[in-house]
Amino acid sequence: MEVISKLAINGDRLSANINRLAKIGRMPNGEICRLAFTPEILQARYLVQQWMVEAGMTVHTDAAGNLIGRYAGLAEDMSALATGSHIDTVPSGGKYDGVLGVLAGIEVVRTLRESKTRLKHPLEVIVFTDEENTMIGCQAMSGTAKRSPEDYKPKAEGTIETCLEIIGGNWDDLAAARRTRADMAAFVELHVEQGAVLESAGKEIGVVQGVVGMLRKAISIEGQANHAGTTPMDMRQDALVAAAQVVLAVQEIALSMPSHPVATVGFLTVAPNAVNIVPGQVNLTVDMRDLSQDCLSEMLERLQLEIKTIATATNTQIELKPLLCVEPTLAAPQVQATIAQVSQALGLSHIAMPSRAGHDSLEIGRVTDMGMIFVPSQNGLSHSGEEYTSPEQCTQGANVLLHTLLQLDEMY
Amino acid sequence: MEVISKLAINGDRLSANINRLAKIGRMPNGEICRLAFTPEILQARYLVQQWMVEAGMTVHTDAAGNLIGRYAGLAEDMSALATGSHIDTVPSGGKYDGVLGVLAGIEVVRTLRESKTRLKHPLEVIVFTDEENTMIGCQAMSGTAKRSPEDYKPKAEGTIETCLEIIGGNWDDLAAARRTRADMAAFVELHVEQGAVLESAGKEIGVVQGVVGMLRKAISIEGQANHAGTTPMDMRQDALVAAAQVVLAVQEIALSMPSHPVATVGFLTVAPNAVNIVPGQVNLTVDMRDLSQDCLSEMLERLQLEIKTIATATNTQIELKPLLCVEPTLAAPQVQATIAQVSQALGLSHIAMPSRAGHDSLEIGRVTDMGMIFVPSQNGLSHSGEEYTSPEQCTQGANVLLHTLLQLDEMY
Repeated sequence: MEVISKLAINGDRLSANINRLAKIGRMPNGEICRLAFTPEILQARYLVQQWMVEAGMTVHTDAAGNLIGRYAGLAEDMSALATGSHIDTVPSGGKYDGVLGVLAGIEVVRTLRESKTRLKHPLEVIVFTDEENTMIGCQAMSGTAKRSPEDYKPKAEGTIETCLEIIGGNWDDLAAARRTRADMAAFVELHVEQGAVLESAGKEIGVVQGVVGMLRKAISIEGQANHAGTTPMDMRQDALVAAAQVVLAVQEIALSMPSHPVATVGFLTVAPNAVNIVPGQVNLTVDMRDLSQDCLSEMLERLQLEIKTIATATNTQIELKPLLCVEPTLAAPQVQATIAQVSQALGLSHIAMPSRAGHDSLEIGRVTDMGMIFVPSQNGLSHSGEEYTSPEQCTQGANVLLHTLLQLDEMY
Repeated sequence: MEVISKLAINGDRLSANINRLAKIGRMPNGEICRLAFTPEILQARYLVQQWMVEAGMTVHTDAAGNLIGRYAGLAEDMSALATGSHIDTVPSGGKYDGVLGVLAGIEVVRTLRESKTRLKHPLEVIVFTDEENTMIGCQAMSGTAKRSPEDYKPKAEGTIETCLEIIGGNWDDLAAARRTRADMAAFVELHVEQGAVLESAGKEIGVVQGVVGMLRKAISIEGQANHAGTTPMDMRQDALVAAAQVVLAVQEIALSMPSHPVATVGFLTVAPNAVNIVPGQVNLTVDMRDLSQDCLSEMLERLQLEIKTIATATNTQIELKPLLCVEPTLAAPQVQATIAQVSQALGLSHIAMPSRAGHDSLEIGRVTDMGMIFVPSQNGLSHSGEEYTSPEQCTQGANVLLHTLLQLDEMY
């Protein structure tokens, strides 16, 4: 791919629209709170829907509340190429997370339309429902949605049934939202990195190898609460000493794996938690992420071994309980290769990297060929009012998205 | 000391009185709540005062609210020998902590009186005020009481001034409670061990070498809260990983010292404390105890060095702030020797050991010759409804107290 078309998206318009959308749900401190199923998300969806229509798309909402704009292809019977992301935020979010992928998708369609270009494939831009919390939108599309409404706890008021109804979805018909390779040939998502890998490597584009799987465990350590003065060191069953060893074991295990997984003890509580009492109980969580399920399994196995040793050495009882297990999804090799080649052709520096945050692509990649394009996050910050990606970087990412879709249109 | 007198205390009466006092403040779950300055403590003081009077003592209350029974000596101009402890409890205490020392003291006087024995020295039995919280009683006696009433926070309602008034004390006159070697020749306290050293060594009497000093520090660790997925292991400033290293350093330092000090991280909190966020901040406390101030200073110095290394290695900032510093008090060698010889003569097995809990003796030992006698605590438990020392063990301790005072009467 030495020559690609001269098409380019309108970066100024993309930035203006990002800023326009950021006004909805903006709090006095500059952070954005646009939770799924709230009046703010309705307002944002309305605006995005308008933009889709103006760009020449037909718009509909599926049973999971996913908002889908469709730009007709030359061969309407072909399965669609799709892009998109989400416009809901965490309670104190920034203006790029999710939004960039949706608005860049719309910008791609505008660019195609303005140059009177149609792909062979129909092209869909999808706004997924509630990515930041339940992920019900992408789960319904991939067929992994849970059966019971009680399994979904929306951050907005009401049950998942009433919440879906508010945005035009329908819990009872959720299965109808399911997609397959037969109607979606490939899916590409542009997203801000939300980490500092690109920035510290000085690269412009991240070619995502896949979205990591997550293994979360709750660990409870039972020792014996005791007087911190009168209990000699060799008669203690100090749950915090055991916990400290677990925290360091988790770190060492992650550091020793060749694939550079991450592993975190983010939550830890001590009881009775008094300056003069030997800790009797500690509860903590472990979160492990990697692209390879084998790596996750090996880390868990090693942690279980370490925990046995620690329990014996500290005379405590340590129990491990499952909290979450999400299998990794790899990006399709030909989509990855296309993103890398397009970046190269556009003169953009790029590296291959895993996505260690969850994304709608994690689910969509289970049913069709998936790829993701990352652009840098300043200081690696996200889920924060300080989240920032420059207009130039947003434009670069959107151009990679545009030309990747153009290439995939030839390949699929 | 091969021969000692045949005097012996009445163990049944001692046990009956311990059980009688335990009815005051007993909660439905069997634990005892008899906080200083409450109606419960007034009721308990009234009962103890009655027993003192019945035993032939004159009773008065000093400015710090210490209740002092005095059994006249043959030489009333001699400085007093003294014994005693406290009858206030922690919010969920047992029936032996403190009480044994007070009631054994009264039993000693009863035994002397019943055998028509008088010491040369006047003999005082002291009920110290609020040992479990402010320690204002023993501090006032040793002249280490704080100047400002705000420095004392009673667990009962009201200020320390109104609290002292309730039990017959007087804040404004606190200095008058001060004692010196000139009016107190020696002080011996019988107490339950509150630990499991005697039980696990299979010994009946602990000859206390001194009351350990305490060094308490607050440690705050500042890292950087970050996404647990997108932040690579080598870019983290994980405050909990640093804290885990501090917890283990504290333990290793204590274990490496030849004098067997104790050191505890009993309190630790994590922020933001979420399963998917790298911990940005941890606050914890360190409590170190030993008989030797030099040992405490050395442990602190080593901890400070370790903390520097840990801060560098984890890219965090670690600050240490003072919380408490209490100097150790050694027991007088001749009092220790007397307790050991008396135990031997009574056929009781004994070992020398530090007291690693605070006691009224910690303060009284600063102004006069001090000694402490420990008896075993079942399973090392104290500050608990399960606190237990058998009637036989209580009697053994009281007999050691009786004969120690008889011997000291000859020596001083």
